[in-house]
Amino acid sequence: MSTHHFIPDRYYNILGLHEPVLGIAAGDTVVTTTADAWGFDAQRDLVAARSNPQTGPFYVEGAEPGDTLVLHLDRLAPNRSYGFSSAQIAPNVVDPAYVPELPRLANGQRPLAEWYVDVATGMATLVTPETRLGRLILPLTPMLGCFGVAPAGGQAISTATSGPHGGNMDYRGFVSGVTVYLPVCVPGALVYVGDGHAVQGDGEIAGTGIEISFDVQFTVDLRKGKRIGWPRGENDTHIFTVGNARPLDQAVQHATTEMLRWLQEDFSLEPLGASILLGQCVEYDLGNMYDPAYTMVCKLAKRFLR
Amino acid sequence: MSTHHFIPDRYYNILGLHEPVLGIAAGDTVVTTTADAWGFDAQRDLVAARSNPQTGPFYVEGAEPGDTLVLHLDRLAPNRSYGFSSAQIAPNVVDPAYVPELPRLANGQRPLAEWYVDVATGMATLVTPETRLGRLILPLTPMLGCFGVAPAGGQAISTATSGPHGGNMDYRGFVSGVTVYLPVCVPGALVYVGDGHAVQGDGEIAGTGIEISFDVQFTVDLRKGKRIGWPRGENDTHIFTVGNARPLDQAVQHATTEMLRWLQEDFSLEPLGASILLGQCVEYDLGNMYDPAYTMVCKLAKRFLR
Amino acid sequence: MSTHHFIPDRYYNILGLHEPVLGIAAGDTVVTTTADAWGFDAQRDLVAARSNPQTGPFYVEGAEPGDTLVLHLDRLAPNRSYGFSSAQIAPNVVDPAYVPELPRLANGQRPLAEWYVDVATGMATLVTPETRLGRLILPLTPMLGCFGVAPAGGQAISTATSGPHGGNMDYRGFVSGVTVYLPVCVPGALVYVGDGHAVQGDGEIAGTGIEISFDVQFTVDLRKGKRIGWPRGENDTHIFTVGNARPLDQAVQHATTEMLRWLQEDFSLEPLGASILLGQCVEYDLGNMYDPAYTMVCKLAKRFLR
Amino acid sequence: MSTHHFIPDRYYNILGLHEPVLGIAAGDTVVTTTADAWGFDAQRDLVAARSNPQTGPFYVEGAEPGDTLVLHLDRLAPNRSYGFSSAQIAPNVVDPAYVPELPRLANGQRPLAEWYVDVATGMATLVTPETRLGRLILPLTPMLGCFGVAPAGGQAISTATSGPHGGNMDYRGFVSGVTVYLPVCVPGALVYVGDGHAVQGDGEIAGTGIEISFDVQFTVDLRKGKRIGWPRGENDTHIFTVGNARPLDQAVQHATTEMLRWLQEDFSLEPLGASILLGQCVEYDLGNMYDPAYTMVCKLAKRFLR
Repeated sequence: MSTHHFIPDRYYNILGLHEPVLGIAAGDTVVTTTADAWGFDAQRDLVAARSNPQTGPFYVEGAEPGDTLVLHLDRLAPNRSYGFSSAQIAPNVVDPAYVPELPRLANGQRPLAEWYVDVATGMATLVTPETRLGRLILPLTPMLGCFGVAPAGGQAISTATSGPHGGNMDYRGFVSGVTVYLPVCVPGALVYVGDGHAVQGDGEIAGTGIEISFDVQFTVDLRKGKRIGWPRGENDTHIFTVGNARPLDQAVQHATTEMLRWLQEDFSLEPLGASILLGQCVEYDLGNMYDPAYTMVCKLAKRFLR
Repeated sequence: MSTHHFIPDRYYNILGLHEPVLGIAAGDTVVTTTADAWGFDAQRDLVAARSNPQTGPFYVEGAEPGDTLVLHLDRLAPNRSYGFSSAQIAPNVVDPAYVPELPRLANGQRPLAEWYVDVATGMATLVTPETRLGRLILPLTPMLGCFGVAPAGGQAISTATSGPHGGNMDYRGFVSGVTVYLPVCVPGALVYVGDGHAVQGDGEIAGTGIEISFDVQFTVDLRKGKRIGWPRGENDTHIFTVGNARPLDQAVQHATTEMLRWLQEDFSLEPLGASILLGQCVEYDLGNMYDPAYTMVCKLAKRFLR
Repeated sequence: MSTHHFIPDRYYNILGLHEPVLGIAAGDTVVTTTADAWGFDAQRDLVAARSNPQTGPFYVEGAEPGDTLVLHLDRLAPNRSYGFSSAQIAPNVVDPAYVPELPRLANGQRPLAEWYVDVATGMATLVTPETRLGRLILPLTPMLGCFGVAPAGGQAISTATSGPHGGNMDYRGFVSGVTVYLPVCVPGALVYVGDGHAVQGDGEIAGTGIEISFDVQFTVDLRKGKRIGWPRGENDTHIFTVGNARPLDQAVQHATTEMLRWLQEDFSLEPLGASILLGQCVEYDLGNMYDPAYTMVCKLAKRFLR
Repeated sequence: MSTHHFIPDRYYNILGLHEPVLGIAAGDTVVTTTADAWGFDAQRDLVAARSNPQTGPFYVEGAEPGDTLVLHLDRLAPNRSYGFSSAQIAPNVVDPAYVPELPRLANGQRPLAEWYVDVATGMATLVTPETRLGRLILPLTPMLGCFGVAPAGGQAISTATSGPHGGNMDYRGFVSGVTVYLPVCVPGALVYVGDGHAVQGDGEIAGTGIEISFDVQFTVDLRKGKRIGWPRGENDTHIFTVGNARPLDQAVQHATTEMLRWLQEDFSLEPLGASILLGQCVEYDLGNMYDPAYTMVCKLAKRFLR
């Protein structure tokens, strides 16, 4: 159970079969950094291409298709003070007839907001543009927007989108302390991490959180021979499943089906019991409603499970 | 500012231009009861037709199209101990290929669960069927599933569905203490209330909460000349807007657009400020994903508003 | 089997339980007129309110819930030369980011196009605005955009939308010579007709066809005790079913399920045979993608049926 | 302008940056074969993996990102007599509650149908299973279900789905004589062809056409410096654009936006003229409603273009 300090010197905008940057064992911890969504690092040097460049891939010894990768997000923290976000709500989350009323620049592009991120105080302060919000101050909730494993069958999937392998899920629940379960699709799993957000609303409806470079520490483990269909996770209070698809309806269908399966596989419930419990106790979070695949999260409080 | 004690002797399964059962004034309070979703009252006598029979309509003196009705949900509480829920997750919230695995009775119908609801202790206990859940106990979170005003233009809309006028929104956030704003579409507004749930999960994904008859107390007020497009509301911590449509994507679009309008109308924000704020601070709740129109709720914490 | 010549003196914008304007018997024919979508008649006098005012309702003697109404569209023809259409593609049928590029007037409203409609030659000629299309000439394909019966349970549904009862389906296949089957939901069925289009593209993607007042002749019949779930129809070459819902996916689901039922009820096919046949021979038409409920039509060529 | 006779000895189930099997020049013709969707060739030998194995990729000399590849489908014809199709309508195209009524095998799998395909007479005859359809005979309409170019940015996309690069569009309009335009995303374009269907219904709603190995002849050309966003095409009567996405609504949005762009780029129409013309003359076809990305096709008759 080693701890690896890894300084990235290349980044990928595709989750696929890239040459591993490091081999690690089940139980190992990695301490590394990620560039921001546009490829700028802690020094604001441009080190990678848009969008959502990934650090990795990390090869997990012994991981094989049909296993589950356990990914503990030990520590996620911005490592600089400059953050930026889109200042335009995405056209796809408002009524189509309202789109022309959204703020846009003279050239038709979406305007940006810039933030001063203070990790010591845990606050992000709006620096520009000037609006009636004044110097809006928001509490930091650092999270990873895009991470995952290599997808199955030789596919190479853009970090703009997501799928059963994870990817650009932009779920604000992926914070320090959370454990994520991902289906291993290729030997070594090939773990990627990136796209840190200092703050993000539900749905990532501006198309960005407060984008920033991160210090990331994670620990991996394996569940040999355990097959799952979609990302799963847990925190202190809940277990959850993640569906990535369009429209939101289908993302809900994937996440709910995965949760029904989980309750029957690992919590001894029969279909009837799982239906009764989930029907009255389920919660849903909107991960993102911006990327090509949207993300919905199906949650169940652990206090209702034995 | 009178308090009216009203005992219903008829119920409606349509929100429309029915003869008012009572005239009330802005500031008045109504104390009444509702039958459960299948038409049974506090004594479990069948007093109304399925589904979601409504108490009312109450005619609010002075309410005219173009006004906003303010509806304070003062007190919502089950008034009997017997509750029931569907024991089958709805086919539309799981992957289509998974539907045959959902629990169903030999005749193809969905099975029921029955609950003992104890208002004194604030708990619902699963009585039947026998499952590995045993005697599952859930905390009560009493809420109104279906309520609203008469829709515009002479429409008469079933209590199975929802729209700009409210209706069957099945949002677990409609609890005691919440204030709801509804667009007045006809003279007198014509307020209806019904469909109490002792407990409900997000999305009402079984197609029911724990269905039960209720004691309901509400107080009305008017915002003359204030036009809104969709139901709005507030509680101690948040303001929120409600979009009712299919698919979920369109419900989000309605709710988000309504929130952007609200922030500009009543909170002095310009489009740019509203976009920046909502982009990083918005929250969404899934009201229901079962009825013909789904419901998504767009929320903003009051602490981010001046 | 009488022929009734009916001159309307009132119109309805809601399909519901209005007082019948005429009682007719199974086998009877009605010859009447309809106003255009904005309420103007053959003389371009404003005689009704927006949108899609309906002529009727006609009470069909002996029609009861659980029967099927047979509606032969004998003759549909514009009865004046002035037609108009929207000159803006609807924002919901283009990519959200493209919406600001759609043509709009300085006040944000959608521009109109005006057409000269010549029934004698069967041609519509674009009169205004001036564009690089010049005097575009289109062949007439007269169709009814909105018609149906009163919905079930006391509902009163706007002519802006559609449902199992018909309504604003805007399907270009509803032309002279077609037979439509509608579920009778209330005693007398209560038949409404209106919203003639001289020409219309698939999907009614501008939100209008070439809108115009019509001469309409139809003949009714009854299938006693025959229950259907959604509108059905047939022409010389095809049988078809109509699903009205959002999104298009759900409209397809309704129409396809209705077709599978029809093939098993009336064409002696078992589930397996119906699936094989439909899988390789089905056709779909896009009725409208503009109204609150979209319309998809599932078709099967009669030559594949015995 | 050479003609290349190419006999495949490997197949790919991913459209991506594979080693080209042949270099060809603009103007060249390729005569080759494709295996069926499950990997069986003309001799019914298993030569490739499921699903939709592709012949190619063919490297087009001089093709660069930002160009358009012109792909003439010269000749598409089954090269054996055995075809198969799914005998189960896909669960996602019927109402969720209807899914349990679809035909399925005792093990839950979907049943198959087998067909005798006679290219000489142009007919497919149902051989098995026994149903009330008897020996159903359908006219052949040979088409390519899956073909395209390598996607952008190093992505490698499964032949189960589709995107701007083409892929598994399953559009019954891709028949002999059609010209397809595809965006070149990588040097050499890397053209793939496969997944022949002897017959297919709209929407590929059984999840298959009549699957069969093919003889394929195509000719390529280049439009240097011409950028397009989505596949386009034309046949004798129509030009068309293809949108690949879920839900159908978004596929329509992509296709309609691409058509509006095309009318303005190459047919001298301004936004207003394009909107008027498309509004009244557009047609839509449903490509597939089965794959992860659905396909809708936006068509315009050439007779309305100068």
